[in-house]
Amino acid sequence: MYTIEQLRDIVKSEMAKQEYVEEPYSLFEPIKYILEDGGKRLRPILTLMAYNLYREDIERVLKSAIGIEIFHNYTLLHDDVMDDAELRRGRLTVHKKWNSNVAILSGDAAAVTAYKYIEHVEDEYLRRAIDGFNQVAMDVCKGQQYDMEFETRQNVTEDEYIHMIYLKTSVLIAGSLRHGALIAGAPEHEYNALYDFGGYLGLAFQLQDDYLDVYGDVKVFGKNIGGDIVSNKKTYMLIKALELASPEQREELWNWILKKDFNHEEKIKAVTRIYNELKIDEVAEAAIDKYLKKSREILDTIDVPTERKRFLYEVIEGLGGRKK
Amino acid sequence: MYTIEQLRDIVKSEMAKQEYVEEPYSLFEPIKYILEDGGKRLRPILTLMAYNLYREDIERVLKSAIGIEIFHNYTLLHDDVMDDAELRRGRLTVHKKWNSNVAILSGDAAAVTAYKYIEHVEDEYLRRAIDGFNQVAMDVCKGQQYDMEFETRQNVTEDEYIHMIYLKTSVLIAGSLRHGALIAGAPEHEYNALYDFGGYLGLAFQLQDDYLDVYGDVKVFGKNIGGDIVSNKKTYMLIKALELASPEQREELWNWILKKDFNHEEKIKAVTRIYNELKIDEVAEAAIDKYLKKSREILDTIDVPTERKRFLYEVIEGLGGRKK
Repeated sequence: MYTIEQLRDIVKSEMAKQEYVEEPYSLFEPIKYILEDGGKRLRPILTLMAYNLYREDIERVLKSAIGIEIFHNYTLLHDDVMDDAELRRGRLTVHKKWNSNVAILSGDAAAVTAYKYIEHVEDEYLRRAIDGFNQVAMDVCKGQQYDMEFETRQNVTEDEYIHMIYLKTSVLIAGSLRHGALIAGAPEHEYNALYDFGGYLGLAFQLQDDYLDVYGDVKVFGKNIGGDIVSNKKTYMLIKALELASPEQREELWNWILKKDFNHEEKIKAVTRIYNELKIDEVAEAAIDKYLKKSREILDTIDVPTERKRFLYEVIEGLGGRKK
Repeated sequence: MYTIEQLRDIVKSEMAKQEYVEEPYSLFEPIKYILEDGGKRLRPILTLMAYNLYREDIERVLKSAIGIEIFHNYTLLHDDVMDDAELRRGRLTVHKKWNSNVAILSGDAAAVTAYKYIEHVEDEYLRRAIDGFNQVAMDVCKGQQYDMEFETRQNVTEDEYIHMIYLKTSVLIAGSLRHGALIAGAPEHEYNALYDFGGYLGLAFQLQDDYLDVYGDVKVFGKNIGGDIVSNKKTYMLIKALELASPEQREELWNWILKKDFNHEEKIKAVTRIYNELKIDEVAEAAIDKYLKKSREILDTIDVPTERKRFLYEVIEGLGGRKK
């Protein structure tokens, strides 16, 4: 049985071995660039963990797991163009380093590469693997569409937000786990249960990200605090604050949101003060704990020795504890 | 056995029956928009024709053939963003009617839709169908990359140009034919031969398009004559003209290419005159005939009764005759 750290090393060294670049180099260099930037590799690790619940020979699913990481990076590539993002994990985004056309086309090529890798499964599992992956890929598109639409809407509800992040973030995490269990030969109700487990885990994961933007420790979080506040991102924190605010607090929030010219620190401080007054930290913590509880309940039902589920439980506990 | 017209009607009526639109509508409306604009449906028709060489029950491959048309339209969607094209088949392009983000994301969703449709094949053929399609999709990306790079290069050779249009245009035509024959249960050497047949056919098809931009009849061609000349598109005509020109003719051509302010009609007339002096029409006709001859030779080797190949021969003859 492999620890999370062992699996991360295995994924990283396998990814380092791959040859992503062929002619025309201009098409493939950006794919190499985004794949070598050292993300957490969460999704392929989850695929391997789900597989490892049932089987030890993880090399059997390794290439296909890497396909999921490539797919994830393809969505980041296109999302960054659509959001006109400057930086990704501390480096220039592809469309800033090159240009939008490069990012669009290299993204398309990365998507095909992802499909090629994901199909490294035995014939017996091929159709279900691809069907599952198509469903995930389509849901991710839908999530990104909702996310873009929310930017210009002033009345996004909590339910709409949860639905959006479920599609945009959770579904791929869910699909990564399902894929691993499927290829391990798990029974259908179990690989589907692991999908549901991942769905809740993904929600907790995204809400945690929203939470840490306000209450995180910059050294642990790895991003600047308050970035979402400065950019008026409709996070769980802001949506709940607008919902729970008194008329005066709501007016103050909207004043900050609509202000074109402001001092970043001042805005972060003022909005955080309102969040504190409304105890949005506790509201978010409760929501995170709710989704972690649901994921734990599903994991409990997976019929393998508890010892084999240890590291998946650790993922849940790690998320629950990553409050600062 | 089905005629080309019958197959076109079958493809069109099947496409009209599909429900491409679900929530969020904003994601799927552009896909519906581009699919309903009435292209020639050449690629799915070729899939059905290749299938029909061997079998009559074409409904077995119909949905999968439509997937190829959806894939083709996805590439048009993204190409139009990258080329910043205004019009496509006489209507506003998706990124002009909506915006670039819509075109990128709807294109991504269309690609997934294409994969879903293409996989409507029996298990026995699934892996080869998908592998073939991945290869085609990757080649199309490479072709588009070369095409964009050629825009800013002044020394593109005939060989480079042929390689580019082979990847960008021929490979999908080739893949459409291969797919139909594969699903019909044709032997491997025959579905691969049909791929090669389609490769040459695609080259002839693209060179014909280049030729008709200069020498076509606007009523038959359906586009304005001289569009490529006005926009300095590096077509076969221009590449051969620059290669064969005298120093004086080459200078005159470059003057027209570099001129920022010019009368469209005057430029078309002047460049066409140089083409005429160099007999570029005959050069292009000879190249088209060369590729048609190669495609005919391959079709000859396909081991089905000649009668069954009649309509594919007609496609070749039709292209050869479509000079005006």
